[in-house]
Amino acid sequence: MTIKALVFDVFGTLVDWRSSIAQDAERLLSPLGLTTDWHVFADDWRNEYQPAMEKVRSGQRGFCKLDELHRGNLDVVLERLGWHQVNETARETLNLCWHHLEQWSDVEKGLARLRQQFVLAPCSNGHIGLMVQLARHNRWHWDAITGAEIARDYKPQAIVYQTSATALGFLPEETMMVAAHSDDLTAAARAGLKTAFIARPDEHGPGLGESVAKSPMDYSASDLLDLATQLGCA
Amino acid sequence: MTIKALVFDVFGTLVDWRSSIAQDAERLLSPLGLTTDWHVFADDWRNEYQPAMEKVRSGQRGFCKLDELHRGNLDVVLERLGWHQVNETARETLNLCWHHLEQWSDVEKGLARLRQQFVLAPCSNGHIGLMVQLARHNRWHWDAITGAEIARDYKPQAIVYQTSATALGFLPEETMMVAAHSDDLTAAARAGLKTAFIARPDEHGPGLGESVAKSPMDYSASDLLDLATQLGCA
Repeated sequence: MTIKALVFDVFGTLVDWRSSIAQDAERLLSPLGLTTDWHVFADDWRNEYQPAMEKVRSGQRGFCKLDELHRGNLDVVLERLGWHQVNETARETLNLCWHHLEQWSDVEKGLARLRQQFVLAPCSNGHIGLMVQLARHNRWHWDAITGAEIARDYKPQAIVYQTSATALGFLPEETMMVAAHSDDLTAAARAGLKTAFIARPDEHGPGLGESVAKSPMDYSASDLLDLATQLGCA
Repeated sequence: MTIKALVFDVFGTLVDWRSSIAQDAERLLSPLGLTTDWHVFADDWRNEYQPAMEKVRSGQRGFCKLDELHRGNLDVVLERLGWHQVNETARETLNLCWHHLEQWSDVEKGLARLRQQFVLAPCSNGHIGLMVQLARHNRWHWDAITGAEIARDYKPQAIVYQTSATALGFLPEETMMVAAHSDDLTAAARAGLKTAFIARPDEHGPGLGESVAKSPMDYSASDLLDLATQLGCA
């Protein structure tokens, strides 16, 4: 079965959320006299991500846009630090930093090459509005925005991968999930999609991301340019 | 309230469905020895569109992709003509002609100018997969695909316009519906959106489309280039 569409994980695979959030948090919070290790601050905020989504996946909480989960998680982190002086406006501004994260250096060019041959869409837990802003910020051309919001559930639920493929007009086996996380890809494979692993060895700090997939994938690449070459894209 | 996003009707407003379908039907069916006025064939096919959607809007039938309605409508038209020799494969091929309709001459350039200043998405009764193919065929850059499929209902139901605006991350009043059909725009206005009328005087044949809006709109333009100029897009 020929691959016709590529769907992408975004946080970590396409954007360096950790450096971006650390930089933005420092820029916005240090003028208030607050100081910390800003990369740890980014990690702490991100660490609340899976538990918050698990409440939705388990049915304990209805589906909501990721902005809302990010905002609740930020409040948890600020409370833990005792930073009550961060007011509502600052919290809202900080929360929207997830809308303009910086991409890894290969992404803009890599997506442009891949789009010559494949239909491209994000398959992220981020909602449509967030994906729109990230794409405009980083000059990406998606064919559509698929992922959690159109499936009304979060990855790694099978419905998210399958809804993304069929919304684009393809079978799961004609669609390949591209991600820097083995667990995301394993779930996509279980849902019937092809898989491409992208090494992002620095996602969680230097050498602390996944550089090798934990299980066999249909493709493994050092970055999107390498994947484009492997798939025969000029 | 500033306008931040533009959402577009597609069939008739961006693409000349009538000429495209007439041409494709002639190309595919005349080799079978069939002959008719191919523009009337296109009109007949399109005339089944609203009644088919009305079954979904009224709850008589569940939501389905427009391909499915188009296909049922094609069977009705072929049955009426007594063209039983058109086999399954030919019907499928003909049905997919809706995926590569030709655009009006101002659209590619007009959308590119408008996108410099606004978030752009279709708000069509066509599904995501069909919108993806039309966009690739005509070289449009959408920020996302909104419309019927994400709302699971068809225009002119208010939920379709509202879901499109909020999915993009905007309030209805920050979003403007752009269409060549007064009834579509009136429904969008009732749902809280701003409205821009585009004249397409030849949609249903020379001089048989709407050249003037039937009621007051926020903007009225001769084409998308005119709209871009009125909105201050370079």
